[in-house]
Amino acid sequence: MNLTDMTVKAFTEKLASDAPAPGGGSAAALSGALGAALISMVCNLTVGKEKYAEFEPLVKDSLEKATSLIKNLLEGIQKDTNAFDGVIAAFGMPKATDAEKAARSEAIQKAYKTAILSPETTAKDCLEVIHLAKGLLHKSNKNAASDLAVGAMQAFAGLKGALENVHINLAAIKDEGYVAEKRTWMDELEKEAKTLLKEVQSSVSAMFA
Amino acid sequence: MNLTDMTVKAFTEKLASDAPAPGGGSAAALSGALGAALISMVCNLTVGKEKYAEFEPLVKDSLEKATSLIKNLLEGIQKDTNAFDGVIAAFGMPKATDAEKAARSEAIQKAYKTAILSPETTAKDCLEVIHLAKGLLHKSNKNAASDLAVGAMQAFAGLKGALENVHINLAAIKDEGYVAEKRTWMDELEKEAKTLLKEVQSSVSAMFA
Repeated sequence: MNLTDMTVKAFTEKLASDAPAPGGGSAAALSGALGAALISMVCNLTVGKEKYAEFEPLVKDSLEKATSLIKNLLEGIQKDTNAFDGVIAAFGMPKATDAEKAARSEAIQKAYKTAILSPETTAKDCLEVIHLAKGLLHKSNKNAASDLAVGAMQAFAGLKGALENVHINLAAIKDEGYVAEKRTWMDELEKEAKTLLKEVQSSVSAMFA
Repeated sequence: MNLTDMTVKAFTEKLASDAPAPGGGSAAALSGALGAALISMVCNLTVGKEKYAEFEPLVKDSLEKATSLIKNLLEGIQKDTNAFDGVIAAFGMPKATDAEKAARSEAIQKAYKTAILSPETTAKDCLEVIHLAKGLLHKSNKNAASDLAVGAMQAFAGLKGALENVHINLAAIKDEGYVAEKRTWMDELEKEAKTLLKEVQSSVSAMFA
């Protein structure tokens, strides 16, 4: 069964167990999806309201993007769980001869790089969610402004969770150039997300001060 | 239908719509529940492992507390949605005479105070989750340490979301002493949570440096 077809209760309880799936990466993708959903909710509570008519094109565009991000992040819940299958399969390869050992090592290294793709995409999607929240500040239903802040926060938690997963896989990768490049990318992504999140939070706080 | 009986996909999609429920408060409670579930997962991946035998009593105690927090936070998903029903009902009271107007105003004020109870509890529960994460640092399965950090982050996002809901309701309450007291409580809760979260994050980062 696809993880997103589980009930909220069952998903949470399974996450809490020592079962291999869902794991932290899937929880991160769900957090990002909840963030995108809150942004979408804010758009839906704004569209068609006369007071915000001048921002209608932006809001509709944000709604479309948020809807697409929800879809991607919900898919990420499952993908993240599948991502590690390749690593496990590679570890199961024969290692009787030197040739087999070399092929196995190479396959393991390749599998770890492949396993990074899913959390990497989740992290990027979460950053997009925070961008959307920032873009909607003062241009969407004020009554739902706090949901922009909460949505951005949810997405940030998702981003951090996804990056933790990238981080763990990187620790097993021997290609130093690749690892260094990914680490730089991660630092920049987190820095950008943190700056945006702070802007959203302080802007929303100021609205209600 | 109880919101936690919805599938993960349906819940997220409904959250994204302009339907009144689930709203941001329910998303916050779910985020807290996911955080508690990650802490529980870490405990379940530690219990019975010889390497961590000396911490077994702490881990078992944390597991019990996390399990109870999951239950409470999952209930919070529904409660938060119901919390506002009283406010809506009070607004629907008759207001033809001065006596009716006075009774209605009083009922509205009382209903707002009642509506605060659910997000207030969610925020407290989320803080407990972060406390559990901190307590398990260096005393639980190192392979799952990043899940402690992600769990704490999820709980922090839940706490912030819940406090936003308290904040919104406070804005409608005229009892200045009550409002001031709640604001002080909120500030202290958030400060404590932020300090704990930073400790968890920097401690986990240092483990993998």
